[in-house]
Amino acid sequence: MTALDTERLGRRAEAMLEELAAISEEPDRLTRRFLTPEHKRAAHLVGQWMAEAGMETAEDALGTVCGHYAKEGETPGANVVPRLLIGSHIDTVINAGKYDGMLGVVAGILTVEHFRDAGRRFPFAVDVLAFGDEEGVRFPTVLSSSAALAGRFEERWLAGADRDGVTLEEAMRGYGLDPAAIPTAAMRKDEALAYVEIHIEQGPVLEHDDQPLGVVTSIAGQNRTRVTVSGMAGHAGTVPMPLRQDALLAASEMMLAAEAIARTHPEAAMVATVGQTKVMPGAINVIPDRVEFVLDLRAASDPPRLAALREFVTRSEALAAARGCAVAFDTYHDCPTAPCAPWVADGLAESLTSLGLPAPRLVSGAGHDGQSIAHLTDFAMLFVRCRGGISHNPLESATVEDMGLAVAALIRFVEQFDPQRRA
Amino acid sequence: MTALDTERLGRRAEAMLEELAAISEEPDRLTRRFLTPEHKRAAHLVGQWMAEAGMETAEDALGTVCGHYAKEGETPGANVVPRLLIGSHIDTVINAGKYDGMLGVVAGILTVEHFRDAGRRFPFAVDVLAFGDEEGVRFPTVLSSSAALAGRFEERWLAGADRDGVTLEEAMRGYGLDPAAIPTAAMRKDEALAYVEIHIEQGPVLEHDDQPLGVVTSIAGQNRTRVTVSGMAGHAGTVPMPLRQDALLAASEMMLAAEAIARTHPEAAMVATVGQTKVMPGAINVIPDRVEFVLDLRAASDPPRLAALREFVTRSEALAAARGCAVAFDTYHDCPTAPCAPWVADGLAESLTSLGLPAPRLVSGAGHDGQSIAHLTDFAMLFVRCRGGISHNPLESATVEDMGLAVAALIRFVEQFDPQRRA
Repeated sequence: MTALDTERLGRRAEAMLEELAAISEEPDRLTRRFLTPEHKRAAHLVGQWMAEAGMETAEDALGTVCGHYAKEGETPGANVVPRLLIGSHIDTVINAGKYDGMLGVVAGILTVEHFRDAGRRFPFAVDVLAFGDEEGVRFPTVLSSSAALAGRFEERWLAGADRDGVTLEEAMRGYGLDPAAIPTAAMRKDEALAYVEIHIEQGPVLEHDDQPLGVVTSIAGQNRTRVTVSGMAGHAGTVPMPLRQDALLAASEMMLAAEAIARTHPEAAMVATVGQTKVMPGAINVIPDRVEFVLDLRAASDPPRLAALREFVTRSEALAAARGCAVAFDTYHDCPTAPCAPWVADGLAESLTSLGLPAPRLVSGAGHDGQSIAHLTDFAMLFVRCRGGISHNPLESATVEDMGLAVAALIRFVEQFDPQRRA
Repeated sequence: MTALDTERLGRRAEAMLEELAAISEEPDRLTRRFLTPEHKRAAHLVGQWMAEAGMETAEDALGTVCGHYAKEGETPGANVVPRLLIGSHIDTVINAGKYDGMLGVVAGILTVEHFRDAGRRFPFAVDVLAFGDEEGVRFPTVLSSSAALAGRFEERWLAGADRDGVTLEEAMRGYGLDPAAIPTAAMRKDEALAYVEIHIEQGPVLEHDDQPLGVVTSIAGQNRTRVTVSGMAGHAGTVPMPLRQDALLAASEMMLAAEAIARTHPEAAMVATVGQTKVMPGAINVIPDRVEFVLDLRAASDPPRLAALREFVTRSEALAAARGCAVAFDTYHDCPTAPCAPWVADGLAESLTSLGLPAPRLVSGAGHDGQSIAHLTDFAMLFVRCRGGISHNPLESATVEDMGLAVAALIRFVEQFDPQRRA
């Protein structure tokens, strides 16, 4: 192993992220949605960087930019080339930061560039992937680019429309893509050795623990459950406290119960959130007769999450009954946990150790392309500390030092990667 | 005392209320706001009934209909005629019931009619008053008609406008009233002996306790305090529970604290209500960083209410601090308790006893004209059971039997009224 100039790698990453961030739909802030002209410009820039780093480049049926760094002795046109996949996404939320997604793509490119400069090839190819639909802010789809790679694109998604009424199908054609070609985006399982992704944490854990990098153990499973509490309206002045059936007080107790339940499962990194409430009739001097809220519940594994949801339902029913209220539940979204493959995560941890860094483990509470790619191949992720845990915001920030360490870790990971460790 | 046909009195009241309820701004529901043509039509009908019942009628500067039942041997034009005031209001909320306000006016008319039919006069006059601005739904004023009677009309109220931009002053002129004459509406303190009002309870206490009528001990004092809780926004998936500063959970604990405090003061008939909340930023997957709500706190006397508000502030500050949140308070409305005069309330209680009825005491959590008139003379109120405690709603209902008992009680009250009991 050669010594790595992590500061130089970090500065390179920062400069590339600046360049990408200049490509925006809006003049004064960063917004780059799937299949927009700005997505295309960013994809071209990424493809150019990949080519400069020694990769053959292609665009798949969903617009994903694919850079291919050939294995040692690779025969052009060979039927099956086993490959290590490195990727992330180049679409953004509205009014985004410049690290979310892009850092993972840039890290992959800098990693390949390092090996090209060193004249190194491996017994496997390295593919760098820049997905275009991870944030899901334009169409009512989730992770459609990586789903297509994993052969799990759903045809019905094509009819989904953006806020201007443009369907995904129309937007693909406008971008120059052929919806009929989507099946060709799917990779063969025997081609993919593993998928790794570098991403900013988007949370405060690494900063709180004073760690630059962390190894993700799983992407949290999640349910969203709509809770509707019904009580009895009444005049704020005339109904004595013991005669009330106040839906808002019942709902308040339920939200606190959800918090208490989540707090008893730190081992599962469980988090429970209520982000909005609807109180009816909503007059200052009327006792609420109806409150609706959505419980967003996530955890590192499914059994404790599902048990916690059952406990929340049981406790909420008792809380409602104690106040003469009723409560109904609708779990309209339930996404299972996507566990990282231990052998891939261990490889990332070893690369940190080889750099003299600790290798703390953490759960990703946010969703990532690995959730789709898990259906194709084993995956793991490396998180980079971000300032204040802030993401999806122009204040999003990672230091040059931390980014340099992340690229170095990815270089070490590829150097030490052994497909034989796969079970 | 002659026996009273309470069933007949109740049926008379019901028929008169039906006739009044037919006068509405809207075809399919009862809405009759201050100084509208429908208010004028209702005032004319009431004046006609008063005249038929043996009263001289007049309209004061605010449009209040005043029926005067002369004392025994009254000299027309006498300088000071001491009078017992009986009143309520004929304006309604939007989509109202037909009992709120009108029952008190109709009961006063039926009471005078009873004495006229019996050929009875008293050593005091009986004035029946039909106020036009109790609900306060048209202009940003509260109880302006009774305030004018009490000499407490505030000139600045004239500039207040309704939703169409019509000021109170313009509406008065349109109704045929002269704003310059408002001071003439004020009654001399030595003319007024006491004020009594019959009103539906607008709450569930009498129905819950299986009592047709109840004597009001005071109109509750009230404060409205805006509470603003500030925390830290964050991603619902990525911020571990112990690192959160969730403004909604802090607010939930504060609302429950307000309830707990109010429940410890049943002796003050204390009630605490939060009827609406504003949660920001208000996304399902974002931890709330700001919550605003208004605490409506009422009690039968002011010291426990003000102490409860201080306790709420102290506990809320501690609850916020425990979560790393901040909290601010703005008590933008603080109306003191209006206690009923014991000698007038006792008189109402004795009239119930003389009818063989219990005389339960209760607090009015809602506001009434007595709050203004308390500045002119001693007052008390008699509450009539209403179905389900429902008011400000077409479902508002009182039985013919209960209304008959209420009119009978008012007749007995007048018969037994002794101004000498005044302290």
